[in-house]
Amino acid sequence: MKQFATSPLFERVERARRRKPKIKDTHITLAHGSGGKAMHELIEGLFLEYLRNPLLEKLEDQAVFEIASNHARPRLAFTTDSYVVDPIFFPGGDIGSLAVHGTVNDLAMSGARPLYLSAGFIIEEGFPIADLKRILSSMREAALEAGVEVVTGDTKVVQRGSADKLFINTAGIGVIEHAGHISASRAEAGDKVILSGAIGDHGTTIMIARGELELETEIESDTAPLNSLVREMLDEADSIAGVRAIHCLRDPTRGGVATTLNEIALASEVCIQIYEDSIPVRREVRGACEILGLDPLYVANEGKLIAIVADEIAQPMVMRMKENVNGRDTCIIGEVKIEPPGIVAMQTGFGGARIVDMLVGEQLPRIC
Amino acid sequence: MKQFATSPLFERVERARRRKPKIKDTHITLAHGSGGKAMHELIEGLFLEYLRNPLLEKLEDQAVFEIASNHARPRLAFTTDSYVVDPIFFPGGDIGSLAVHGTVNDLAMSGARPLYLSAGFIIEEGFPIADLKRILSSMREAALEAGVEVVTGDTKVVQRGSADKLFINTAGIGVIEHAGHISASRAEAGDKVILSGAIGDHGTTIMIARGELELETEIESDTAPLNSLVREMLDEADSIAGVRAIHCLRDPTRGGVATTLNEIALASEVCIQIYEDSIPVRREVRGACEILGLDPLYVANEGKLIAIVADEIAQPMVMRMKENVNGRDTCIIGEVKIEPPGIVAMQTGFGGARIVDMLVGEQLPRIC
Repeated sequence: MKQFATSPLFERVERARRRKPKIKDTHITLAHGSGGKAMHELIEGLFLEYLRNPLLEKLEDQAVFEIASNHARPRLAFTTDSYVVDPIFFPGGDIGSLAVHGTVNDLAMSGARPLYLSAGFIIEEGFPIADLKRILSSMREAALEAGVEVVTGDTKVVQRGSADKLFINTAGIGVIEHAGHISASRAEAGDKVILSGAIGDHGTTIMIARGELELETEIESDTAPLNSLVREMLDEADSIAGVRAIHCLRDPTRGGVATTLNEIALASEVCIQIYEDSIPVRREVRGACEILGLDPLYVANEGKLIAIVADEIAQPMVMRMKENVNGRDTCIIGEVKIEPPGIVAMQTGFGGARIVDMLVGEQLPRIC
Repeated sequence: MKQFATSPLFERVERARRRKPKIKDTHITLAHGSGGKAMHELIEGLFLEYLRNPLLEKLEDQAVFEIASNHARPRLAFTTDSYVVDPIFFPGGDIGSLAVHGTVNDLAMSGARPLYLSAGFIIEEGFPIADLKRILSSMREAALEAGVEVVTGDTKVVQRGSADKLFINTAGIGVIEHAGHISASRAEAGDKVILSGAIGDHGTTIMIARGELELETEIESDTAPLNSLVREMLDEADSIAGVRAIHCLRDPTRGGVATTLNEIALASEVCIQIYEDSIPVRREVRGACEILGLDPLYVANEGKLIAIVADEIAQPMVMRMKENVNGRDTCIIGEVKIEPPGIVAMQTGFGGARIVDMLVGEQLPRIC
């Protein structure tokens, strides 16, 4: 016992338990936007300190609340994301489709049916109208596919040099029509960890599209709306053990699968055990990541989800998800254990084990 | 008659009637963010063309819709605005309070009770954490005063030079608890035009704060939440003739009172007649505007509203509004006539008359 109490692992667990993030920096760095540790410190140590309320402090990717009404209290989900991706056009999508998919997916991760989006554009003076048309056309298609409407918007123009081309903010409202409770804090020992497909496509695509490396590949961003997949998952759970058997849903965007699993392990105070060999990574993505010096576990995805579900529904859920166009390569990548809490551990291909930490530092600025 | 048919006024009216704005520019200019004509062309000729749906094409400052629920259909308002004001700190407020007030006010202008805000931050690398704390503190105070909560958020960091310090997007959700129908398209002949106080304070303050002119004045931004004022206005209307006697509510921000009145005149197909002498402008603001070459009618306000109401409730409404801290200088500034439709006409102090057009060109970039 004493040996364990002085081990690095014990230290790590204790740190996670005691953690009260504080901002020690005096200036914002790119790492504060990475999706990793520095961003969590900024959000929990600063934004949450100032704006704290019961909904915000859940730190989910969307707020869920009821609207008081005469006879019913519909449950809504509300979320926002700003998109600053560079370049704005990339294989598989552009900033417009990304802005629709990202917000649709954040709503879907609460099990909500996405309904309405807002869109706020910050445009640099001199931006070509032809590019704006292409982006709006792509937003229209993405909204149609996801079954949502952009119902309110805003446009600001700033002087040349005061913004880089175009930033888009979308906020979204969805309605929750099931009785489930999906939250990063609901993972339980015995649960299975499901991943809806191969990882790393989006981040790798953006990195290559920047042209910093002369790589020729067929890799495309996986940007896609996940609401139809989630709707089918809710149906499936409902037909077996009830919707509440889906415990957590998250889309592993900035910071990748590693960061998302760490968020869940911390929020649920459980250990998440994953198996390296079971995590699908396309051959081209693996190759590009090796050249770029990236670990696909930390690379952003824009059309994938992680589901943590009760063991009894895991197998049929995987089968059902594989039928959806955005879930064809779904697989179980791990399970939830009691100890050590707050930790993501990975069994490597060589039979070893290592702790998978949250993303530290800035891996890829402006990836979404 | 023939003479009228060839007069400039007739031309203007016909243009307004036929208007199908088209984007002829090939690149975005600062005027596209001005709140004036170029922005309307961009929104109606481009954004609306691509993203058209029945809610968006109303072109109100917020979307109003019902959420289907088991027994009730609560009516919600949803709005968004990005804030790019420069400088980020100014007399009377900062980008944080502005971002809360602006979205609260856009919700209030539908008669909604604002409930929840989202906040999306785009931060330039190197931004001082101390400034961020000051802005978050100001958002907290503004949210408390307005009775809203920031329940979901997002943070992006971009490289130095890719954004100017800090941009904030807020989106907001409110619930409409009255049976009224407030819309820019509901102005009717005989209605009175009410203004909640002196104009031009915000825009003039920002212009002076930029330090381009060495002016020393006591002028402060009027940035303030207007939801308590609107709540009292709804009460007042309800106690006399019903809530539906409030026809239009708008906050004259970018483009000023002139642009907002033009929007209403066009949407309602009426003529709005205003009286120059009745429009309150602080002495310092009038003086600064003269030096800056600005017409206060086109200068942005962030704590004022224009109400167009049935004649029978106009006088008691003004009395009631004067009791509210944000309506002390409320007055009637004009009335609605049948002809010529789509026109704002002003009786000048000298007894003359002139057409007050929408803002043309870019008066003040990054005013909000």
